[in-house]
Amino acid sequence: MKLADTRQDRPVMLAIAGDSAAGKTTLTDGLVEALGAHRITSLCVDDYHRYDREERKGLPFTALHPDCNYVTIMEQHLQLLATGQPILKPVYDHSTGLLGRPELIEPTEFVIVEGLLPLSTKLACACFDVTVYLDPPEEIRRDWKVKRDTSKRGYTPEAVLTEMDKREPESEAFIRPQRAAADIVVRFAPVPERDDPPSTPLSAELMLRPTIRHPDLTSVFSEVDSAAMHLKLLRDHDGRPVDALHVHGHAAREDSLVLEKAIWSAMKTDTEFPPSLGVLGDAARSDPLAITQLLLLYHLLDDRT
Amino acid sequence: MKLADTRQDRPVMLAIAGDSAAGKTTLTDGLVEALGAHRITSLCVDDYHRYDREERKGLPFTALHPDCNYVTIMEQHLQLLATGQPILKPVYDHSTGLLGRPELIEPTEFVIVEGLLPLSTKLACACFDVTVYLDPPEEIRRDWKVKRDTSKRGYTPEAVLTEMDKREPESEAFIRPQRAAADIVVRFAPVPERDDPPSTPLSAELMLRPTIRHPDLTSVFSEVDSAAMHLKLLRDHDGRPVDALHVHGHAAREDSLVLEKAIWSAMKTDTEFPPSLGVLGDAARSDPLAITQLLLLYHLLDDRT
Repeated sequence: MKLADTRQDRPVMLAIAGDSAAGKTTLTDGLVEALGAHRITSLCVDDYHRYDREERKGLPFTALHPDCNYVTIMEQHLQLLATGQPILKPVYDHSTGLLGRPELIEPTEFVIVEGLLPLSTKLACACFDVTVYLDPPEEIRRDWKVKRDTSKRGYTPEAVLTEMDKREPESEAFIRPQRAAADIVVRFAPVPERDDPPSTPLSAELMLRPTIRHPDLTSVFSEVDSAAMHLKLLRDHDGRPVDALHVHGHAAREDSLVLEKAIWSAMKTDTEFPPSLGVLGDAARSDPLAITQLLLLYHLLDDRT
Repeated sequence: MKLADTRQDRPVMLAIAGDSAAGKTTLTDGLVEALGAHRITSLCVDDYHRYDREERKGLPFTALHPDCNYVTIMEQHLQLLATGQPILKPVYDHSTGLLGRPELIEPTEFVIVEGLLPLSTKLACACFDVTVYLDPPEEIRRDWKVKRDTSKRGYTPEAVLTEMDKREPESEAFIRPQRAAADIVVRFAPVPERDDPPSTPLSAELMLRPTIRHPDLTSVFSEVDSAAMHLKLLRDHDGRPVDALHVHGHAAREDSLVLEKAIWSAMKTDTEFPPSLGVLGDAARSDPLAITQLLLLYHLLDDRT
């Protein structure tokens, strides 16, 4: 039947928006490895930069500004991917700061689109089945950004912090407003007023908005230590009701496993629990990250069926 | 009114297909200059090469082969332009043989798409209002190609001729079949069995297919020397009826002017006759070229109204 075919050819589209070094790639990588590159395609919309690093030096705005990006072309490409069509995506090389030869992207079953501005326009938002905003506390993000940009992009710590200060008004104006467009807001942070050892993973606070259907996890929370893991009905900053799922970094491994298994079984999949979940860049592991990724996997697979 | 607006935002699309060095750029340049870059956008679909020059060396086909080009992306971009939308076009640099940073193309009132394969698929053809195929005799094209590729692209004459021989099976298989999809087939050639001085411009033979409405020129031909300029009903190679317009290179200037003015007045435009028409790359001028360009201008402006 024509209609069914058309639907089947369309990928499930997941957006992961957030400021520079908010953890988008770490979150994405575990999902791509879990499903396999033959099933999932990931791309970064920071490739839609209109100017290279040299050209940006003479401009009155930073790379965060919509005017510094081909936003219309990004929207067009998101629409094409959402309807199952290939795109010739521009390529920005973070190590050289140059724009280069574009690459062909053909959508598979699932497409993850991460970057600074994937939820910055109404038309872009409409292309996604599930939308995520990464919202770490600024001091955590500063740490992450300094670590990454000094080790992988060849900057000095001072240069990174100066650049962050310069970008702050545009983070405020263009990046953070995307939080409002997210079905799930993810915040990795230490638990305030606790003196956990430094090796304790960050906790995850997941704001699950009723804009999409989340798995029913209420039964899980009667079995686990409610101080370490709980679901709480509250109002978001903007007053909207939301389910807040807290997974503390100090949660016991067995409690985390109960929750992981509950989400996994809600998926009704017959594949193995993917070992890539929760893996941090430096070979450490985080249960709060694993649970966040599992929840996103749930939404990807749920939209597929 | 919504419908009228939508139509108005769509450009008139003209395709100029033909083999390498068939005269596509010369024909295009006069039109772009006549209408002005603010009204007309031109692009070359040879930019959709999938591989750079170095990569092509290891491949069993040449740049003419559809597999050597992102044909699906070309089709997609032609559809976007035809519906008035911008594209981020790939860029192939003929001087270095490298693929580079893509460029934004925003359609204006008129879009000319020239290149090796703009009419190579049904979907691509459907994007155009007027389609042209340039069909010079092979010996003329060899001369043009050697001249251009040695002066502008740094090749030796031997290398150019070897490459042409290598490309011949793919010219046969993929380039020349596009002739069948053209509304107008243009052949610049010397008049056979005449001993014109070498400075005589090449004659133009324009096959005007009844697939689009051409201007009524019948009255013109009673006024001019019919040996130098005439319209003849004949059958094309493929047996289809066609009007063949011959403009000989030795035609008298005043006869050419009668025809030029007749086409110009059929356009009902109040602008000046554009001096860029008929200009050859080397500052020479050709009335047969001017008349060919005028006829294309007629079709562009006629489709606009």
